[in-house]
Amino acid sequence: MRLLEERIKKDGQVLGQDVLKVDNFLNHQVDPDLMAAMGEEFQRLFKDKKITKILTVESSGIAPAVFAGLAFHVPVVFARKHKSLTLQDNMYSATVYSYTKKVNNHISISKKFLNADDRVLVIDDFLANGQAVEGLLSIIEEAGAQLEGVGIVIEKTFQKGRALLDQRGIQVESLARIAAFEDGQVVFLDDNQ
Amino acid sequence: MRLLEERIKKDGQVLGQDVLKVDNFLNHQVDPDLMAAMGEEFQRLFKDKKITKILTVESSGIAPAVFAGLAFHVPVVFARKHKSLTLQDNMYSATVYSYTKKVNNHISISKKFLNADDRVLVIDDFLANGQAVEGLLSIIEEAGAQLEGVGIVIEKTFQKGRALLDQRGIQVESLARIAAFEDGQVVFLDDNQ
Repeated sequence: MRLLEERIKKDGQVLGQDVLKVDNFLNHQVDPDLMAAMGEEFQRLFKDKKITKILTVESSGIAPAVFAGLAFHVPVVFARKHKSLTLQDNMYSATVYSYTKKVNNHISISKKFLNADDRVLVIDDFLANGQAVEGLLSIIEEAGAQLEGVGIVIEKTFQKGRALLDQRGIQVESLARIAAFEDGQVVFLDDNQ
Repeated sequence: MRLLEERIKKDGQVLGQDVLKVDNFLNHQVDPDLMAAMGEEFQRLFKDKKITKILTVESSGIAPAVFAGLAFHVPVVFARKHKSLTLQDNMYSATVYSYTKKVNNHISISKKFLNADDRVLVIDDFLANGQAVEGLLSIIEEAGAQLEGVGIVIEKTFQKGRALLDQRGIQVESLARIAAFEDGQVVFLDDNQ
């Protein structure tokens, strides 16, 4: 998505070897007009699927997910993060390892909001090692719901998350696909196309 | 806002004396079409103010805030919550007491995203004892920014938050104002008007 790639080049900050900071339009300060355009793009990319529900994880996934929800006119459920694993009868839970913080987090969704009739689109801000998405997929499986696809704002193609999802035959659509960071600059996969 | 009051009557759950659970359209599962209508209503209510920025707190404030941001076409900044107070030079911080959980939380906003030129609208999902809003107001004051108003989705008029803000002469607009819970039912302030 050209609009997003331009914004990343303008406002994204590359930190070290593999971190891209986009806190001025995506995950601390949010640009609502950009989010609305992204929501419409997700709808276009998955328009052939009969999506009934969108799933994401708090907090950075919420803004892109609710605008995708608006474009599809379906409810959005955001999984809650917990430091400790508190298994409850009325919740689906999964454990998510954070490579950046090197800790296990736990995510959960109320059973009321996901069931076997649901056809689910997962939306998240980043796809790197794929841990958060894997956690959501295990919750979807536990609920007996059907996964229709995964929509990502920014994918780091050189980390393992994309390959893990491709192996499982899942339709993954990323609005910006980063091939590499070179000299502190972002190189997109389609820069040479 | 009639649409919101009807939704609260239909889907809200009154728990005990003073808790209203609205996790099926506001703070766990989110109805994006309702959020978009609320965003436009906030814009109508504060249209005479020259808002440059919207502030909220993760996670439940994000959905209503980003749709207000879309209606105003201004950036939205969500404060991050922390268990421990970590004072950093590049962050504005405040301590927020949670009456429901009986613990102190800490919220922070990067100094990059709030400055003395900003005219700020604060948006939050609930106004009860007003602690979260007070925390945001102290951050706005620290930044030297100007507070233009506070927009709330659901106000519990019988708790002290509204009075605290009124005393300070702040324009507060709540989309649903709850007068009381009677026999497990919600009574709105305008039910008898």
